[in-house]
This record gives sequence, C-alpha cells and structure tokens, in this order.
Amino acid sequence: MTPPEPFRLTASEAQAKFKDGSLTVETYAQSLLSRIKARDSVTNAWAYLSPDLVLSRARELDQIPPEKRGPLHGVAIGVKDVILTKDMPTQHNSPIYEDDAPKIDAASIMTLRANGALIFGKTTTTEFAATSVGPSHKGPKTANPHDPTRTAGGSSAGSGSAVGDLQVPIGLGTQTVGSTIRPGSFNGIYAMKPTWNAISREGQKLYSLIFDTLGLYSRSVADLKLLLDTFQLVDDEPVPSEPFTIKGAKFALLTLPTPEWPEPGPGTASAVTKAAELLRAHGATVEEITLPDEFRQMYKYHLQVLSGDGRVAFLPEYTIAKDLMHESLVGHVENVANHTRRDQLKAFDELAAMRPKLDALASKYAAIIGPSAIDEAPVGSNTGSAAFCGPWTAMHMPVVNVPGFKGENGLPIGVSVVAGRYRDQYLLRVCEEVGKVFEGEGGWKREM
Amino acid sequence: MTPPEPFRLTASEAQAKFKDGSLTVETYAQSLLSRIKARDSVTNAWAYLSPDLVLSRARELDQIPPEKRGPLHGVAIGVKDVILTKDMPTQHNSPIYEDDAPKIDAASIMTLRANGALIFGKTTTTEFAATSVGPSHKGPKTANPHDPTRTAGGSSAGSGSAVGDLQVPIGLGTQTVGSTIRPGSFNGIYAMKPTWNAISREGQKLYSLIFDTLGLYSRSVADLKLLLDTFQLVDDEPVPSEPFTIKGAKFALLTLPTPEWPEPGPGTASAVTKAAELLRAHGATVEEITLPDEFRQMYKYHLQVLSGDGRVAFLPEYTIAKDLMHESLVGHVENVANHTRRDQLKAFDELAAMRPKLDALASKYAAIIGPSAIDEAPVGSNTGSAAFCGPWTAMHMPVVNVPGFKGENGLPIGVSVVAGRYRDQYLLRVCEEVGKVFEGEGGWKREM
Repeated sequence: MTPPEPFRLTASEAQAKFKDGSLTVETYAQSLLSRIKARDSVTNAWAYLSPDLVLSRARELDQIPPEKRGPLHGVAIGVKDVILTKDMPTQHNSPIYEDDAPKIDAASIMTLRANGALIFGKTTTTEFAATSVGPSHKGPKTANPHDPTRTAGGSSAGSGSAVGDLQVPIGLGTQTVGSTIRPGSFNGIYAMKPTWNAISREGQKLYSLIFDTLGLYSRSVADLKLLLDTFQLVDDEPVPSEPFTIKGAKFALLTLPTPEWPEPGPGTASAVTKAAELLRAHGATVEEITLPDEFRQMYKYHLQVLSGDGRVAFLPEYTIAKDLMHESLVGHVENVANHTRRDQLKAFDELAAMRPKLDALASKYAAIIGPSAIDEAPVGSNTGSAAFCGPWTAMHMPVVNVPGFKGENGLPIGVSVVAGRYRDQYLLRVCEEVGKVFEGEGGWKREM
Repeated sequence: MTPPEPFRLTASEAQAKFKDGSLTVETYAQSLLSRIKARDSVTNAWAYLSPDLVLSRARELDQIPPEKRGPLHGVAIGVKDVILTKDMPTQHNSPIYEDDAPKIDAASIMTLRANGALIFGKTTTTEFAATSVGPSHKGPKTANPHDPTRTAGGSSAGSGSAVGDLQVPIGLGTQTVGSTIRPGSFNGIYAMKPTWNAISREGQKLYSLIFDTLGLYSRSVADLKLLLDTFQLVDDEPVPSEPFTIKGAKFALLTLPTPEWPEPGPGTASAVTKAAELLRAHGATVEEITLPDEFRQMYKYHLQVLSGDGRVAFLPEYTIAKDLMHESLVGHVENVANHTRRDQLKAFDELAAMRPKLDALASKYAAIIGPSAIDEAPVGSNTGSAAFCGPWTAMHMPVVNVPGFKGENGLPIGVSVVAGRYRDQYLLRVCEEVGKVFEGEGGWKREM
C-alpha cells in the first residue's frame, strides 16, 4: 500500500512524519503547492500565494535542529486575507488596500510563527470579512471544492475551501456572526470559533470589538487541539486525559425562539435529527429544548450592535474612499438604518446579561448541539445565512462545526457543538468522540 | 502688542490663521519644532520626531488649495507610540519592537490624515501602555513640564507632557484604566476619554478589548470638539448650539464605596471641593452622592478582567521574547495571580450589568464630577494611581479632565467631568462652560 500523498495528511499526521524523518517540510510544501496548482482554477481559494516564499521558509524550517523545533514545526497554515502578515500583502478584498503590504504580523501570526508554523499564503475573504457577497471584487469567485457551482461560504471563503480541498491542513478564519462555522459546514471540515477574546484578535481587521473572533479550520480535532495549545487556552477545570464517554452523557438539542432563527432546510433538519439519533444510539440522552422568550431578541440585538460597530470601524475607509466600498458598509457608517445609540446600548447590555444565563444552561449538558447552516452550500456566490451561528458568537461561547452529514445533493453538512465560555479544551475533548461518530456514521465522506 | 508665537496657539486658533492667510502650516510647524528643540532636554516627551518629515508634510499641506483643505488642515498631532503610523516607527517602549516600522496607519491616524491633520511625531509611553513605570526602558524619563522632577503621568506620558508644554496642540493617548485622564490632570490640560468604541481602536496596541479607548489631549474644549466631529461622534439627542447654562443645572459629586477608591490627597480634595463651590457660586446645585454597595467591587472586577485580557494580549511578545518584557506583563501571561476564568467572567458580566445603571444615574445630572488623580503629579518616575479613573473606563462612559486647580506645590490638578455613554458631544458642551469657570477661578494658570 503506497502511503498517502503528503497533501492528504492532517497537520498532526504531517508532524509525525517530520519527527520520524520520513518527510521534510520542503517536500511537504511541494506536495501542497502541487495540489494547489492542480486545483486552484476550480476553487480560487488564494488571495496571495508565493511558492518561492513558501519553499524558502520550508527550507529554513528544515534547517532547524530537531531539538530546537517548535510545537507547530512545519504546520502549514492558510491565513484569511484580513489578518496581517509581515511578508505577504493584506488586501481585505478591497480595492482600497490593493497596494497595501504592511510589515507587521497580527498577534495570532506572531504566536504561530514563533512556534514553528509555515505561514503558507493568504486566503480569500468577502470585503473586510463584513459582507455576504462572495469574493472577490475582481477575478473569479472562490468555489466549494465539493461542487464548484456552489459557494464555499463566507466570509472565510478561501480558508474553508482550501482546507476542504486538501490544499492546506489548517486555515485561519474570523467570525463576527457566522463567518467561520458556516464555511466549515459547507466545506465538510472542522471549524472552531473559540471563546471570544481567548485568542488575541490584534491585527485582524476590525468589524466588531465585542463579536470578532479568530476562527480555526482543520480536518481533525487533533489539529484544533494543537492550535488551542499553541494559543495557551486553558480551562479552569483540568481536562481529563482519557477520552470523553458518550455513553451516559446528556446533550441538549437547542433551538431558539427568535423570529430570525429560521427553519432549517431538509438537509440540515435531517443532519440534526440524525446527530441526535446517533448520540442516543451510542448511549447518550439528548434533550430537545427551546430557549425561553427572554432570549427572543438575541439575533436582532446582535445585528443592532454590529451596525453600530461597523459605523465606527469603517469610518477610516469611508473617509478615504467610500466609492470603493460595498454599499452595506457605507450604510453602516451613514447609519442608514437610523439605529439610535440608545437602542444599540440596550442591545449591547441585554446580550451581556444573557451570557451568564447561557453558560449556566450549557453547564448542565455535555454539550449543546444545533445546526451550523441552513442547508448544503447554496448554488451561486451568495455566502448563505449566518442565523444559526450568530447566537453562539453573541454569547461568546466556543463552538465547533463537526462534519459528517450530507444533504440532498450529496454535499457536506455539519452540526454545531457548543460549550460554555472558556470551556474550549473541554469542548474539543467532547468533539473528539462525537466527531468519530458523526464522521463515521453520519453518511458523508470526503471524496477526493 | 505682538501676536503670540505660533506654538502657543490652540489647534482651533492656528486654523483660524491658516484660513485668513496670516500663518502657513510650514511656519507653524517650524515654531512647534523650535519650541520642542528648546524644551526637549527637559521634558523628553518624544519617542520619534523627524523635523524633515514634519516640514515636508507641512509644505504639502500648504500646497493644497483652500477649497480642498480638510477640516483638520494643519492641525499638529502628537501620537502616543502604541498607535501605528505608516511613516514613523512604532516601538511601544519595548526593546522587542526597536526595529519595527510597520507601513500601516491605525484607524484613528487614517481618519485624521484624511482630514488634513499634520501627524507630527510619536510620543513616549510606558511599555505597551500597560505598566505603571515611567518611560522609557532606555534614555531619559519623560518629565512633567511644570516641574521636571515630577512624572508626566502614564501611560500616555509623552502626549500629556508635550501638550502641557505647548510643544504640540493636540496629543493622542490611550486609556485602559487611567492612562489619559491622569496625565491630563498632572500636566494641566484637557483630556478626554470618549465613550468606549466610539472611535476605532484598530491599530492601537491591544491590552484589553473591553476597556482600551483612544484618548485625546488639548488645551481647549474647542479643540476636543474638532476631534469628535472628525471622528463623527454623534449623540442621539441633538446638541443645542447655544451655550450650556450652569445656572440652575444639577451636578453630582460622586464618590465610590470600594476599598480601592482611595482617599484623595490634600490638593485633589481641595480641588474637588472648590469645583463644587464654584459651580454652586454660578448657580448650580451639586449633590454629593456615594454609589450603593452593589458597585463596591467595580475596581476589583476591572483589574481582574484586565489581567485575563493581558494574559491573551501579551502572549505573542511573551512567546517571542519574554525576557525583554516587564515582569507585570509576564505575570499576566503566566497568570501568577491565579485568577480563574470563572472569576474573570463573573467580573466581566458584573461590570456589564453595572453600565446601564450608571447611565441611568448620570442621566439625572448635567454631569458627574469627581477627582482625576490622587493629587499633584508625584516626584519621581512612578506614574501614579489610576484608581479614580478606572470606574469611568470600566463603565465605558465619556470623561473629560478639566484643568484649573492647583495643589500644595503649585502644580496643576484637574477634575473629571463625566456623562452617560454616547453623550460625548453633550459632555463637551457642558465642559465648555464648566472649563471657563474652573480655568478662570480655580486658581491655577499655565505659566510658560
């Protein structure tokens, strides 16, 4: 049996081969570059990629003596193009930043590089990670690797597509409403939005201080754990080293009563139902609960705060070149919806008051599960609805999209698994086992 | 009578002269540079200053035809060296960033430049605006212009000192606890911490997402208003164009019950008493109130959240070179105080719950007044206590330090004037009149 081509490896698998000497970072990088070369005309996931730069860094990493290698040695990471990188341009999918090449790394990139990661290239995004129109303002649209007529989601389109297409094992995204989790579902990969502010968002384009969160993509839970450990996320309660046991655990299948919490499509409805069935079949109990009425305004509040935040965040670009901005962003700055600051403060304060209540609810369960997206990735370039993702973002709770299900057209569908704030490591431990079940028995397999 | 030397002008006064053609930006810049040359060996307020760059930009601004000049045309601004500027290095008073020169402007700088401001130079800061030890890690310490044996405060030491010493009319600072308001008091100038997130903090070194706020220094309320207008801060209620009337207005003189709310020193105690007396003498009522016990933990919560935020914010630098960081910052990352995330979430949530209550309280008064600092600037390089400033930062409320009082050694002392969130323009209208009274009758005059 021939070993898999290196580009098929998860980051953890590649690291094992770096460690035993059976693979160099350079050879690995060449394999990823070949994969990208073969597939880029279909997926268009990269906003910037310099093979020379990648190979040069890979060779530098190979020169480091084994005892001095960092915990992320050789881990290849695609970076959403709203996150600053000192050796690659950051353009935010905006013509305003076309010639921009700031020599500075975002906080996340500093930490990743210092731990030995191979920052691979910049992946496509919707404009400033803040519109629902697929990239890009010029050139071809980023496509779903499982069906190029469909969206890869947004706003973290490129990282979702590239990780789903085996072009890179790890991708960085961002989430302000549903920009990490939704593409995770559409592209059939693991996606994690950690607890808000558990990883520094410095150097990542600002939309909302209170919602923006760095997002993580991978094809295994082990790879997500590698990243959380690098970013030193530590729960209060030590996470046991033995695997989580589904048998006897209690999950909540949660729906929200808001008018903005939409009906799931048939694929998502069946995925969520099947997820609950599988957990029950493995010995868990699953309670179906709906949040009480006091949470009804959650999504409306989220969007109100967001518009006020956008009004502040996009003023600089508006001042310089509003004609080059999407009308929805101009609309934030001009406050075309006529939000009052009083309403936005009420929304801000009410969401704050809900957070400890949702934590308390989550603490009663092994995890909360719910839909990640309305259905399979839609045809076309609209990146889909973030309505199912918004609540967890607004509540600052960690959430993982676990893939494994499929829709009516055979496209992947994932399920969101959620825990209370700062229980990120605990959540990954749950997802390790839940993921085995969903990926093993959910009905969707990656075919590429 | 000879007109004042240009460096003595406020920004608004200088603008009037640009407009009537009696002063060019270049001549103005030369006057400021002469002032700095004469005084820099005493105050040491600048981390980076290139006279050639300043004069070259000044000449460019003079070339702009009058009808195309921006609302901040020629306004000279000193920028705290934790705020990114694309044409000047940003070093955060940290050896880790000594060779750093990112080609990117912070959001605030983008907006200021696009409106015609003359970004003058970078002013000194404590390390990452996050320690209480005066700048700098090398070279001479920034001094108080009114007594060089005393601190200019911190962390926005350089901007406070430079504006207080007539070296530049406007300075940018930042405030996470009391880093803008305290130096305002020490240096005898106006200092404003606007409502949290009313001005974008993108591109300003991150310490705490939920507290960090851009701070503004000037020597007149008109100059603060110029800045708020540029940043498009708009209250919900239109601000009347006629002046605020002190007569008949009701103020609150507020103290907090926390153990961390210290006893003011004799200078501050007398300044606050005198402030109340002056307001009463001008026909206002002043109620002395103490917050109820439910607010007792406010400052403790603030510092708990801050330590958790520092743990995340300084991880990148810690990963790269912890030996080059102040031990208090290393302590955040290593969580030496053993804060639990549970405690920090409780603190975060409790502060959030207090905010609407303080807004409601503030809405009953024309403004709340209170101390800005413990007393006059202390001798030495410790930048003093931020305890009186913390609550307004934690509550996200706009606050202005109004100068005008003096301490036992003749040094300036200011009083904090505070309003509810997003009442920034309203607050300035109040401060316009309150400032006339405090500056006119408080007892301290700028002598230089």
